Amino acid sequence: MKGELVTKGEQTRQRIVAAAAPIFNQHGYAGSSIVELMKATGLTKGGIYRHFSCKEELAAEAFDYTWETARDARLVDVDEKTVGVDLLKLFIANFIDKKPPVPGGCPILNTAIDADDGNPVLRERARKALRAWSNRLQDILKVAAEHGQLQPGVAPKTVATLIIATLEGALMISRLERNYEPLRRVQEHLNYYLDTQVRAVK
Amino acid sequence: MKGELVTKGEQTRQRIVAAAAPIFNQHGYAGSSIVELMKATGLTKGGIYRHFSCKEELAAEAFDYTWETARDARLVDVDEKTVGVDLLKLFIANFIDKKPPVPGGCPILNTAIDADDGNPVLRERARKALRAWSNRLQDILKVAAEHGQLQPGVAPKTVATLIIATLEGALMISRLERNYEPLRRVQEHLNYYLDTQVRAVK
Repeated sequence: MKGELVTKGEQTRQRIVAAAAPIFNQHGYAGSSIVELMKATGLTKGGIYRHFSCKEELAAEAFDYTWETARDARLVDVDEKTVGVDLLKLFIANFIDKKPPVPGGCPILNTAIDADDGNPVLRERARKALRAWSNRLQDILKVAAEHGQLQPGVAPKTVATLIIATLEGALMISRLERNYEPLRRVQEHLNYYLDTQVRAVK
Repeated sequence: MKGELVTKGEQTRQRIVAAAAPIFNQHGYAGSSIVELMKATGLTKGGIYRHFSCKEELAAEAFDYTWETARDARLVDVDEKTVGVDLLKLFIANFIDKKPPVPGGCPILNTAIDADDGNPVLRERARKALRAWSNRLQDILKVAAEHGQLQPGVAPKTVATLIIATLEGALMISRLERNYEPLRRVQEHLNYYLDTQVRAVK
């Protein structure tokens, strides 16, 4: 929203979303109490809900905010010169090395687990974000295939699914163990896989 | 506890744990209300907490119950004849094909995400279960290595981490998408990896 004119009400709304984002990302939907939200925003319950119809609307906007900031963090050092398999490797490295600004881990993983047996609005947000991420990776692979940079028969969807699944699962283990080693181990595996089974042999 | 003599109080306690398990596994710690727990057990709040010091104690026992039943489901068709890489492949197949009796997905994944920024007691239970699972896979690999069935330089911990991370991440995607395809895609990848990078070349 930089440079755009926004009303004071819209500014307050955005400030509430940014303050609520780490609470929802760390403690989940049910675990985020109005008391915590009031403390984080410095507003009363009425002051918060003047801007949102319900907790679900606030949680959904907080999810989008957290996801957008995490996605942007993964774009660090991404430029036009890096393409194909090298770009996928850079995305993998950024996922592991670039700490997203909102604490609590990956919002897709958190919200997927939090909402897969419950809240359909949040589940839909997480699914949409997951698909956008997968499509981004698949697009990189499709362009690489068109330039003859991939081995024949490589399925972009399989590669994208494998990268996302492996990173998210390793993130869960790393966060549980408070240790980056699991992420490092899978990074090495994914890079080797991309070099030997995906990238065209020169 | 089959065949053991248990008191009536212990029977009731076990019944409460079994009834509470699907609630905690589906809705998380904060999302599991006393009203739901009362409904599932058919007991009053006092009737439940006569057997547990607090919600945390009940949640921790429910986690252990859910994990043990999920672990047992993954042992289907596992016999003494299946060893080494074939046994790992069977574990992977069972993880995907054998539905655990308690609904809500993998309790380690659920509890890790639910508790990684919060409840230390639940976090410790999830960590302990994760390590036991990883150690089980590593032990299979160590025995295989002693019998010359693995390629030189294969690190059991890396293989175990990779299998668990990939399956858990794919489970998250499959549950979010309500579609088994992501789990099938990673199963194929893991089996190929085990055959080409782990199993000794004949």
